[in-house]
Amino acid sequence: MSPSGRAPRQLHLNINALHSGFVPSAWRLADADPRAFLDVNHYVRIAQIAERACLDAIFLADNAAIADQLDFRPITALEPTLLLASVAAATTHLGLIATASTSYNEPYNLARRFATLDLISGGRAGWNIVTTADLPSARNFGLDAVPDHAQRYARADEFAALVKTLWNSWEDGAFIGDKEAGRFVDMARVHAAAHRGRFFAVQGALNLPRSRQGHPVLVQAGASGDGRELAARHAEAVFSASQSFDEARAYRDDLNARAARHGRGPNAVKVLAGLTTIIGATEAEALRRRDELVDLIPWSYSLNRLAGILGVSVDTLSLDERLPDDLPPPGNGNGNHTFFNATLAQARAHGYTVRELVRALAGGGGHRVIVGTPEQIADDIAHWFERGAADGFNLMPDALPGGLEAFTEGVVPILQRRGIFRREYDGTTLREHLGLAIPADGRAVLQHEYA
Amino acid sequence: MSPSGRAPRQLHLNINALHSGFVPSAWRLADADPRAFLDVNHYVRIAQIAERACLDAIFLADNAAIADQLDFRPITALEPTLLLASVAAATTHLGLIATASTSYNEPYNLARRFATLDLISGGRAGWNIVTTADLPSARNFGLDAVPDHAQRYARADEFAALVKTLWNSWEDGAFIGDKEAGRFVDMARVHAAAHRGRFFAVQGALNLPRSRQGHPVLVQAGASGDGRELAARHAEAVFSASQSFDEARAYRDDLNARAARHGRGPNAVKVLAGLTTIIGATEAEALRRRDELVDLIPWSYSLNRLAGILGVSVDTLSLDERLPDDLPPPGNGNGNHTFFNATLAQARAHGYTVRELVRALAGGGGHRVIVGTPEQIADDIAHWFERGAADGFNLMPDALPGGLEAFTEGVVPILQRRGIFRREYDGTTLREHLGLAIPADGRAVLQHEYA
Repeated sequence: MSPSGRAPRQLHLNINALHSGFVPSAWRLADADPRAFLDVNHYVRIAQIAERACLDAIFLADNAAIADQLDFRPITALEPTLLLASVAAATTHLGLIATASTSYNEPYNLARRFATLDLISGGRAGWNIVTTADLPSARNFGLDAVPDHAQRYARADEFAALVKTLWNSWEDGAFIGDKEAGRFVDMARVHAAAHRGRFFAVQGALNLPRSRQGHPVLVQAGASGDGRELAARHAEAVFSASQSFDEARAYRDDLNARAARHGRGPNAVKVLAGLTTIIGATEAEALRRRDELVDLIPWSYSLNRLAGILGVSVDTLSLDERLPDDLPPPGNGNGNHTFFNATLAQARAHGYTVRELVRALAGGGGHRVIVGTPEQIADDIAHWFERGAADGFNLMPDALPGGLEAFTEGVVPILQRRGIFRREYDGTTLREHLGLAIPADGRAVLQHEYA
Repeated sequence: MSPSGRAPRQLHLNINALHSGFVPSAWRLADADPRAFLDVNHYVRIAQIAERACLDAIFLADNAAIADQLDFRPITALEPTLLLASVAAATTHLGLIATASTSYNEPYNLARRFATLDLISGGRAGWNIVTTADLPSARNFGLDAVPDHAQRYARADEFAALVKTLWNSWEDGAFIGDKEAGRFVDMARVHAAAHRGRFFAVQGALNLPRSRQGHPVLVQAGASGDGRELAARHAEAVFSASQSFDEARAYRDDLNARAARHGRGPNAVKVLAGLTTIIGATEAEALRRRDELVDLIPWSYSLNRLAGILGVSVDTLSLDERLPDDLPPPGNGNGNHTFFNATLAQARAHGYTVRELVRALAGGGGHRVIVGTPEQIADDIAHWFERGAADGFNLMPDALPGGLEAFTEGVVPILQRRGIFRREYDGTTLREHLGLAIPADGRAVLQHEYA
């Protein structure tokens, strides 16, 4: 308790369980199993470490294609809703957030899979809404090109609204189960979606009632204008890729203002910033670990990736020379639009070589990296959290499960001593962990907006 | 071992885990939990009973709609691939067969979900291919009518071939995982589907390698001509709804002949007959249990269902009178085309009232019902199995888990003493249980047939 007698606002922490970890060479560490990306027990171990530390949730990204250089590194492979259904059986409190695409699924199927995960986990499910921007995925679903940004987001908006309608098909009292009277469900309290929109027509009700938390938590990672609008309308938690404190605070303020314009309350959306950590007992040890990890990434892989994000040809980059002066403006590359800006500015200011820049980025895909001691990381987290740049963090450790263990053993106890992170779970559902209300039951009548 | 010194041919037994059981009133029994259809632990219990008795697999039907009278009885609700991913975590040997529709899924997504189930269960997955003939499902996927039979089966054929191509994307040696050399996967041994057909275009390779059993077992329930052709081309196990011994043997012979015409070997397809059992210590006790269960079904439900299968208006049926003489010819109703014929003939011969017919059908949906002692049931099973009418049975107990326990405790030991059912598992994969070969690896080049 704080001196005022009120419990301070609490931080939220998810573990983003990307196969062997966020540095692309993590699978090459001495204690790593290269097959971890295919091993359900790897994910169960990560989930159990997270649950012992009272983290809010495990999060799984997704990609319905081979969308990275599999010759050099693991990819997102096992389908995340099934993987989390298995993880659910080995955990009791941890939230379970899976990514699924609105561009390459049917709303009825997706609503059902997540409602199933929510019921079998006792109300711990979350859906991370993505629109899937890569070409290999589009080509696995009958398309020759990626649908344009505006169309993907228009479809995602209708999709998310329809999924909520389906999740709310059953009023909470609809199930009767009266053996004596022989009455099973009160069909007057089960409502057909009766949706006819621009992208979808779904007539019936979902064949599942709501869970202990109402329905799964909606999660999103909206960076673009369309993405922020989608998040402001539907998301209850948002993953941001903000690189700097100022950028993060501006993003969170913008998102809350947009949510307010859609009539949503001040705490309706929790903003969790992506954060890669590389932890050492001293800062020097952490930096050594970073450089060892980065140097285990084949340089051809790192250079291709850097070139792709910078939007330049790989031929223009030379490891031991400085960056070319004539880079295209930020945002022209393949990455998230907030990618790299801070580190790139730092590289410019200090005259980094390409090799030094790659090391400073820790081989990462554009999220912020902190390299340091548990105290340094806890200070940084507390600063962002207490000064309004984030409601929490989506943890992206260098290596898994080792980098998560270093975090839960080193950083979490410091955050607990500061009173900003739970020592035990108050509830059993993901909504309870995140401090989100149970949505009202009954049918959400949203269809007319999409007709 | 038989006197010849060769182990006799072995029977296959699956448990068809339809929520509270196959008699629609099973949820009203004193020991039943009405919420079982939503409870993962109910399915885990069923799976564990089945695994203790060394059954081949648990099987889950599916329906992506509210397609039965939910006011009176449970429906298929939880999504089966997720449910089995959770059951996988609580079992070690039992096969895991889930139903999924070719009409309302995308091949890449479906291939991935089943490959995931196969990998996380150590090679225990099976896919039951259905084309989904009900209108409520069609209306949940943007359609106003059910696609016609021929088109559904043409799509299913291309779908199944494409899913096999995706499952075989990776040659078995493609994964390297060489930490020293930094080589993860040999991409020269991962093959793009490059499929452009009538219904689907899928460019890439699956993002998952094969499992210990190669790929999931393909299962089907083909009764119509198109259905039998689909089964003969793709299925490795088939569920039949045959009502009589002669019909069952003719069906199995026909299916094997069709499979041979597609170049498949004599044991390429295992035929498992659907079988509802109602078990008592005496036949009289079993009949009493049957009538008690049937009388717990609301008569309005039973009459509606019977009228639908007979293809007549419900007004023409009166509980205490005999069936009308002018029934339409069999096959005109909504049911499986082999539905009811035997029981209907029996009803005619003995002058049953409608009430007596409903009892004789045990409220069932058209599969064969045996009401009797464990010895009677074991005799019947052995007769069908040994005389070539079936390779095994898809067990559909009156109530779950009780009716399964009565079977595993009463019938299974008799089958084991006769030497036709295993006392322990020889292998760990579903293919090993079913005596099916691991399919050849490498890319199955089937696309040209579908262009």
